Amino acid sequence: MDRIRATYRITASESESRVRAEALAAEQSVEMPVGAIDDPRVLDEVLAKVVAIRPHAGEFEVVLAIAPETTGHEASQLANMLFGNCSLQPEVELVDVEFPEGYERAFPGPRFGIEGIRNLTGVHGRPLTCTALKPQGTPPAGLAKLAHIFALSGIDVIKDDHGIANQSYAPFAERVPAVQRAIDAANKEGGGRTVYAPTFSGASRALAEQVRIAKDNGVQMALVAPMLVGLPQFVELQGELGIPVMAHPAFAGSARIAPPLLLGKLFRLFGADATIFPNHGGRFSFSKATCHGIADAARNPWHGLRTMLPVPAGGMTVERVAEMRSGYGEDTMLLIGGALLSAKDHLLERSREFVAAVRR
Amino acid sequence: MDRIRATYRITASESESRVRAEALAAEQSVEMPVGAIDDPRVLDEVLAKVVAIRPHAGEFEVVLAIAPETTGHEASQLANMLFGNCSLQPEVELVDVEFPEGYERAFPGPRFGIEGIRNLTGVHGRPLTCTALKPQGTPPAGLAKLAHIFALSGIDVIKDDHGIANQSYAPFAERVPAVQRAIDAANKEGGGRTVYAPTFSGASRALAEQVRIAKDNGVQMALVAPMLVGLPQFVELQGELGIPVMAHPAFAGSARIAPPLLLGKLFRLFGADATIFPNHGGRFSFSKATCHGIADAARNPWHGLRTMLPVPAGGMTVERVAEMRSGYGEDTMLLIGGALLSAKDHLLERSREFVAAVRR
Repeated sequence: MDRIRATYRITASESESRVRAEALAAEQSVEMPVGAIDDPRVLDEVLAKVVAIRPHAGEFEVVLAIAPETTGHEASQLANMLFGNCSLQPEVELVDVEFPEGYERAFPGPRFGIEGIRNLTGVHGRPLTCTALKPQGTPPAGLAKLAHIFALSGIDVIKDDHGIANQSYAPFAERVPAVQRAIDAANKEGGGRTVYAPTFSGASRALAEQVRIAKDNGVQMALVAPMLVGLPQFVELQGELGIPVMAHPAFAGSARIAPPLLLGKLFRLFGADATIFPNHGGRFSFSKATCHGIADAARNPWHGLRTMLPVPAGGMTVERVAEMRSGYGEDTMLLIGGALLSAKDHLLERSREFVAAVRR
Repeated sequence: MDRIRATYRITASESESRVRAEALAAEQSVEMPVGAIDDPRVLDEVLAKVVAIRPHAGEFEVVLAIAPETTGHEASQLANMLFGNCSLQPEVELVDVEFPEGYERAFPGPRFGIEGIRNLTGVHGRPLTCTALKPQGTPPAGLAKLAHIFALSGIDVIKDDHGIANQSYAPFAERVPAVQRAIDAANKEGGGRTVYAPTFSGASRALAEQVRIAKDNGVQMALVAPMLVGLPQFVELQGELGIPVMAHPAFAGSARIAPPLLLGKLFRLFGADATIFPNHGGRFSFSKATCHGIADAARNPWHGLRTMLPVPAGGMTVERVAEMRSGYGEDTMLLIGGALLSAKDHLLERSREFVAAVRR
């Protein structure tokens, strides 16, 4: 296989399937009437080809073979060829992608992956624990105080809430040093190895400044929403960070790119070391199958890329730890945020219960 | 009004509407149980508020008042607060946004707008004409030859096909000088003022190199897909370009952000001078109302921002020029690509027919 195979689900009657499939192949490659192309090389090497049309639950699936060269071996152009124009066709969903051997080399893949995150945190043989600093609007001293309690409880990773970015009430330049110092102090006090993952946001100049601050303060992990900063910038940022990156699904609007593909495969290809997703049975409606599809895409052997740590989240509770652990296995990071904060004055105790439930 | 007002349509029964609305307000601001927040300042100044719930066609609409400060006055964080987490809820659609007076000052808005594009091209009192270099896979010399013919015919703007990025068969560094030279020669030959808009893609380092090449070669306009390069990078890029920017809708997957909001208002706020969208009756299924909604959002007075040029496209033909002109009026750019190229050996004649139809 020397082509990228992209699978689309199309909501249209099967009688139209051949016409729709051929139209999609033109749309996602030459974007012009195929009959007006004279150059045999373009027809042979550039035009996407329909390699399969198959019925699927009353709709049909189309598999296109897309020439790797059309993607320029770069993230924004790959996204463009997979789902650029057809993202504007509400009846088309991007379901899955397979890459030819070696194609992945143009992309970073996870630089640390599950093994790197385990080595960084010193956690082996059990799932990792994670929580979030909330709510936005809390000044740096308040967030630092929270972080100190969470770190004392033994939680492995403390991330910023994804809504905490670079706002005036807790600017990155003030918040990150304060929180990192608080965690360092708690680690010293309690002998732990808790890691802080602040939110990186904005365009390249803002990101470069955030990287500098993070390095100056010994930050060991990063939280980035690839769809907010943009896929190509997500790739470039990692080269500058040099620490494990957790991907956040904000703005991924993944209803029309299958979540296991976007939050699983593609975020992994583009270099996420961990991927956060809304677990079934929480505040979001992802099904159990979708969630396990994401976890599989994160951890299954794939092109020799490092594995990516699945991080189910979104309204999780300490009571669900055992079930999540048996469902996702050990190579998982369990993220509980608001449910810990609801304990208010008993935050340290509730956080310790979370840690104990996972260490059990 | 000192808050951002964001309108969402939610597919759920009306009996749930109050609960769903309050949950959405928490999700899009503090992202934690409201009862666990003690700080009255956070409850008062940071938590989004439900300001209206109203039935709409069997579903209901919710208007949230979002604190501007939560957006950090920056594109990625604004997108996060408007549609970060709730983009993962398939029953939620972002319909519209209104900003408080003065909020827009943090963003560029169109730097040139309709007036700047008219001054650049010397076109007044009629719609502008636009076509695209296609198909990708054509080497620079072939694209330059096409561009020469289009420019000779008097088309105002020649853009790269959005699929032409930085691939090996026509790298930006070779393609852009060749095409710009061909257009310059045709302008000299025929006395025209045709402008070239190449595709900019990739992350900040690649973009900086493309800006350098474009400046060295006297390129006067740019084509950028904001959702592919990322919204914050789209904003930053413009400051470096210093020429009018056409926004392309690729990857905008706008089914769940209303297109008049994303391709109209938000792209305008973020600085696009022109916005390309799939016209009704072409290869895409946008309705006439949606298309005119985009055009209205592009051109209506709004916060003192410059107007943005609407560019209906996507399977348009010379035969539709009169209808498009009467529908959209003069402050429009008509983009016809493949239908011109289908003329093959008669490309110059067909392009001249397009130009004549618009000059008529």
